[in-house]
Amino acid sequence: MAGSSFGNIFRITTWGESHGAGVGVVVDGCPAGLPLSEQDIQVYLNRRRPGQSRFATPRKEDDTVEILSGIFEGKTTGTPISLLVRNTSHRSQDYSEIASYYRPGHADYTFDSKYGFRDYRGGGRSSGRETIGRVAAGAIAARLLEQLGITLCAYTRSIGPVSISSFDPDECDRNPFCMPDADAAEKAGGYLRQLMKEKNSSGGIIECVVHGLPAGLGDPVFEKLDANLAKAILSIGAVKGFEMGDGMAVAQATGLTNNDSFLPGSDGAVTKATNHAGGVLGGISDGSPLIFRAAVKPTSSIAALQQTVNKDGAPITISVKGRHDPVIVPRAVVVVECMAALVLTDALLMGMSARMDYIKKIWGK
Amino acid sequence: MAGSSFGNIFRITTWGESHGAGVGVVVDGCPAGLPLSEQDIQVYLNRRRPGQSRFATPRKEDDTVEILSGIFEGKTTGTPISLLVRNTSHRSQDYSEIASYYRPGHADYTFDSKYGFRDYRGGGRSSGRETIGRVAAGAIAARLLEQLGITLCAYTRSIGPVSISSFDPDECDRNPFCMPDADAAEKAGGYLRQLMKEKNSSGGIIECVVHGLPAGLGDPVFEKLDANLAKAILSIGAVKGFEMGDGMAVAQATGLTNNDSFLPGSDGAVTKATNHAGGVLGGISDGSPLIFRAAVKPTSSIAALQQTVNKDGAPITISVKGRHDPVIVPRAVVVVECMAALVLTDALLMGMSARMDYIKKIWGK
Amino acid sequence: MAGSSFGNIFRITTWGESHGAGVGVVVDGCPAGLPLSEQDIQVYLNRRRPGQSRFATPRKEDDTVEILSGIFEGKTTGTPISLLVRNTSHRSQDYSEIASYYRPGHADYTFDSKYGFRDYRGGGRSSGRETIGRVAAGAIAARLLEQLGITLCAYTRSIGPVSISSFDPDECDRNPFCMPDADAAEKAGGYLRQLMKEKNSSGGIIECVVHGLPAGLGDPVFEKLDANLAKAILSIGAVKGFEMGDGMAVAQATGLTNNDSFLPGSDGAVTKATNHAGGVLGGISDGSPLIFRAAVKPTSSIAALQQTVNKDGAPITISVKGRHDPVIVPRAVVVVECMAALVLTDALLMGMSARMDYIKKIWGK
Amino acid sequence: MAGSSFGNIFRITTWGESHGAGVGVVVDGCPAGLPLSEQDIQVYLNRRRPGQSRFATPRKEDDTVEILSGIFEGKTTGTPISLLVRNTSHRSQDYSEIASYYRPGHADYTFDSKYGFRDYRGGGRSSGRETIGRVAAGAIAARLLEQLGITLCAYTRSIGPVSISSFDPDECDRNPFCMPDADAAEKAGGYLRQLMKEKNSSGGIIECVVHGLPAGLGDPVFEKLDANLAKAILSIGAVKGFEMGDGMAVAQATGLTNNDSFLPGSDGAVTKATNHAGGVLGGISDGSPLIFRAAVKPTSSIAALQQTVNKDGAPITISVKGRHDPVIVPRAVVVVECMAALVLTDALLMGMSARMDYIKKIWGK
Repeated sequence: MAGSSFGNIFRITTWGESHGAGVGVVVDGCPAGLPLSEQDIQVYLNRRRPGQSRFATPRKEDDTVEILSGIFEGKTTGTPISLLVRNTSHRSQDYSEIASYYRPGHADYTFDSKYGFRDYRGGGRSSGRETIGRVAAGAIAARLLEQLGITLCAYTRSIGPVSISSFDPDECDRNPFCMPDADAAEKAGGYLRQLMKEKNSSGGIIECVVHGLPAGLGDPVFEKLDANLAKAILSIGAVKGFEMGDGMAVAQATGLTNNDSFLPGSDGAVTKATNHAGGVLGGISDGSPLIFRAAVKPTSSIAALQQTVNKDGAPITISVKGRHDPVIVPRAVVVVECMAALVLTDALLMGMSARMDYIKKIWGK
Repeated sequence: MAGSSFGNIFRITTWGESHGAGVGVVVDGCPAGLPLSEQDIQVYLNRRRPGQSRFATPRKEDDTVEILSGIFEGKTTGTPISLLVRNTSHRSQDYSEIASYYRPGHADYTFDSKYGFRDYRGGGRSSGRETIGRVAAGAIAARLLEQLGITLCAYTRSIGPVSISSFDPDECDRNPFCMPDADAAEKAGGYLRQLMKEKNSSGGIIECVVHGLPAGLGDPVFEKLDANLAKAILSIGAVKGFEMGDGMAVAQATGLTNNDSFLPGSDGAVTKATNHAGGVLGGISDGSPLIFRAAVKPTSSIAALQQTVNKDGAPITISVKGRHDPVIVPRAVVVVECMAALVLTDALLMGMSARMDYIKKIWGK
Repeated sequence: MAGSSFGNIFRITTWGESHGAGVGVVVDGCPAGLPLSEQDIQVYLNRRRPGQSRFATPRKEDDTVEILSGIFEGKTTGTPISLLVRNTSHRSQDYSEIASYYRPGHADYTFDSKYGFRDYRGGGRSSGRETIGRVAAGAIAARLLEQLGITLCAYTRSIGPVSISSFDPDECDRNPFCMPDADAAEKAGGYLRQLMKEKNSSGGIIECVVHGLPAGLGDPVFEKLDANLAKAILSIGAVKGFEMGDGMAVAQATGLTNNDSFLPGSDGAVTKATNHAGGVLGGISDGSPLIFRAAVKPTSSIAALQQTVNKDGAPITISVKGRHDPVIVPRAVVVVECMAALVLTDALLMGMSARMDYIKKIWGK
Repeated sequence: MAGSSFGNIFRITTWGESHGAGVGVVVDGCPAGLPLSEQDIQVYLNRRRPGQSRFATPRKEDDTVEILSGIFEGKTTGTPISLLVRNTSHRSQDYSEIASYYRPGHADYTFDSKYGFRDYRGGGRSSGRETIGRVAAGAIAARLLEQLGITLCAYTRSIGPVSISSFDPDECDRNPFCMPDADAAEKAGGYLRQLMKEKNSSGGIIECVVHGLPAGLGDPVFEKLDANLAKAILSIGAVKGFEMGDGMAVAQATGLTNNDSFLPGSDGAVTKATNHAGGVLGGISDGSPLIFRAAVKPTSSIAALQQTVNKDGAPITISVKGRHDPVIVPRAVVVVECMAALVLTDALLMGMSARMDYIKKIWGK
């Protein structure tokens, strides 16, 4: 089944494995006339690039994007934008051993179950490199949103037991964890150093906030804005939980504490006294900031000894070789932001045909 | 934008408002030859029917389903199955007042923002009655899964601060909360009685477990089994959080505690020592039970006084009239189960074409 | 596989068999704010209703449409519009015999091949009654197009060897063949009377012209406007050929005769000296009238003796009982027009997001 | 709107312009385990390559395909197959002039109407090079079909007034027109030489026959096999007509001559005495050979003088420069064959879930 596409009108199709010729994405349905350069995309790719700190895998990759189509004289033409990132840093020998057994927490066993065999080099299609296509496409979506005054900001909310307790977005670039709180970042560093000694790894939480989104985006039933965000976020490998606004905590709330009162806003608009809902009511944006969170599991590849079985079903003890991030969260921050940008762009384009007065604005005589 | 369909191969399209002629669903893509009667569907609808206890709205509705097409001599024909449930218990007068203002926690304001106006009677399309189509369709999906030995069981895990601490599935039918723990159900009753006195409402958590699912279902990228479950569950009104397996808790786990070791299973298969993953690895089922949870917000319609604005943007104080459930969770249990059945059925049918050996099994000569 | 839906943004899902409870359609993605009544739809259904002349089956059916959802205070709400037409004139006894053999020209054998069995009553899902859903949905699409000054006109161009040689659209309503030429209609009547004596039937050609379509609709590759029209028209039972503009005749044309020269149009627009292309260049509308044709095969159900096999594979001689139109063309005219209206409406809504300046017109601040 | 994808389960997405970095396609949904090499694809690309005779444009291009993903150890892995063909023979200077006016028969004007501007170099996205992605993807589909004993053969049936009158498939490779009749090919050569002297061009007809297709493929309503073929074929630039079986001629036929009688076949199967239907009944394959035709218009780019307007709307006289095929038909033959292969492969995969007994064959215990 074709499962590598995402979005309805603004639709991306990603391809590529960690150890093939490269990875990439085709972005179809991007409106004509959006200014776009390779540099616009590269800055997003650089945010997820490995080898930037001692807490990330030292695998060096340039991850340089090439635009193969869809741009003419610096603007999108309305035709598909094909983006290519060549794989350059293969070390297949690191992976040859894992062909014979199933790594705990990985998709080795499930790929064999589904397809009958698998490309075992570096996780193949389930490698983290698959997210390069998402980020490259999301960069284009973010560029489109920016033109409409919509901005996204994702960051690390917690690593293991260490949560942020202050919020300075500029701080995100100053520490290796993309945390908007310098103290928390320092504590997280200590926590991770300890885990690395133990050949262990940590999970964490990514939060994303969107400003400037107009009210009225999303659909009331299956294409709810939050439903599409949930799919987008859970489709990122290692994400195991999704929260919109107050998220799981609503289960212990009451109507009186959870309902957000409406208030008169500036210039005739309507605003809300609180934002427990996270900016979505009935699946449709309400004009407040959008807020959601993703729970990311600890890196599955750990050097500590683990029990598993080989392909013959015999029990063995393994230690996963190779150089792996002790925590996935910091590099996944930009992936979360980009997936959200894709969902919102698609919702904006889908919303173009919601009303007859919109239709007449474009096609009326 | 067409947003009332769900699924790729097993595809449903729901329609209808709370105060129109009725609600219904068209189920397209159901394989031919599945035994099916109206009674098979009715038993699922009866599970979500209101008026069954003092903790549910006394609005009496029969919600009797009529099969309009797609069945011949007791079996599905492979053509679309159209299901109709007439609305019978209109009390439009209860709702006339709400035309003029925006209820907190409801989609009134966002519908106006999106469409320019709204059918204000009983929530219109964002009414809980919209779920009837999902349940009717999900009953068919569950019937199909049952033929393959796959069974789903959803239940209430918690209401407000009251969580289950034992698990007896038969108990679910014996208390009005669909809780598999009689003690917890009694405590939940006490908690809700208190809230009802205060004209307030409660949230809660629904959990769903699936047994018998083969390994190998779902896709590795955007059509991950858990991503589609997340969308399905967040598309249910009032759901604000989704957890697969350990869910949000993975953020505080380490690789050593979170990885599930593989073990030799019976008759050559592979099994797992634990199931933190909830039955999905890399977006594909691993043969373990599937486990996920949904956080449901407190009923937004409460009789207590609340601040809001009217359509002219002026601040007013309101009390939502009508008879509303003090907690949505018990009636949403079957909706969660049915949405999961739809996702799994679609994944099964999509998985039919995963391998050349499957193709040859059907079309080879 | 779900195959009963058509369209991307303006998306319809039809259901129903000739001898079930009824037939119908769900129209999803219709913009909010379109004035719509049951009468708007009924006038289209009346155009395809049988029993209107001696050249059509005397099977009497009211085919009265009921709107079940999606309309509030006389306007579409943006939510799905569910339409139901009850079947009222069952004569299952006419069809019981055909359960045992395969009628030439019908889908009996192919349904058995695909599904393993079939609903043999009146053709089941492959009955002409399946088109009721298309026509009801197409009536809504035509209503939307009308608001933008776009009008469609389909008519019978030929029946057997008898072609029109003049064009008076008003004449279409005055003869039973929907021919815009009174002389041709009279000759067609004579031709059909002779065939009816011989228990035989005739094919014919339907032509459709669309006025008022703006330039710029359709997509350059797979979603070409003419490609979607071709699919729409071939999806109507009994259609075996499709021609855009000059159609098959282009094969014998030369570049010099087939190219349409551009000319300066009124008020700065561009027009064409001729319209061999039929209003589409590179899959995108060029502002000229859209012109296409469909070839309809002779009614397969004929009373004359025919050779076939029964379900056991034994050769038999049959005569198809029941009352059947000696020519399908006149009743299919409105179906062709409605399928075209669906394609064009979808193209209009898809075209809303073609350019950044359109996006800014709706969502800019 | 995303319009560069085709197919439901076996889904391709093409990208690229004639004068960008390259053209390509992503094939998603291909089953795992299909043996596939670059050479398998290259042989199909070579069939559409220009510069092979004096009747084709002398623009030299290697059109060498690179597989970027989806293959491991010589077999498809079930993940997306990304194919890239670099553009090597740019002569942008040939095209600079056409930026200022609209060529008759081309998409220049309609692209400007749709997108507000266009990539005017060599037709941009509406160039014939866009078909490279279709052919590369179709080669994979054909490889899959071959494994099931299904073979496709497309050829030139006529060029201008010259039609084939004999059929020797081996002859197709021996003449530059892909005609299965040496005499007709010689006459076609004479006809084209005359047109070339006149700086003119010719249209023609392509026919395609498919052997080995099982009965039961396709869907009864919108996803009819012939409807999808019609869309596939009309989506090829320059195609203006589509005929299934007898095609347009059915309009003049009668039921007695057009109905194909069923006959007892070998080993219990059912066969047909004739094949006016072209292998499809009610949208579903009937086990007979599939036969359809496409009418291709004359090359729009001709050196003879033509009237048109420039971008300011002023009338001018032009002669299209550059080197263009005097007839598109021969190079389009493989495109038709490949589009058909894509439709049939998708129908096969969609048909996997038509029946409960198929489902149980794969997922039953």
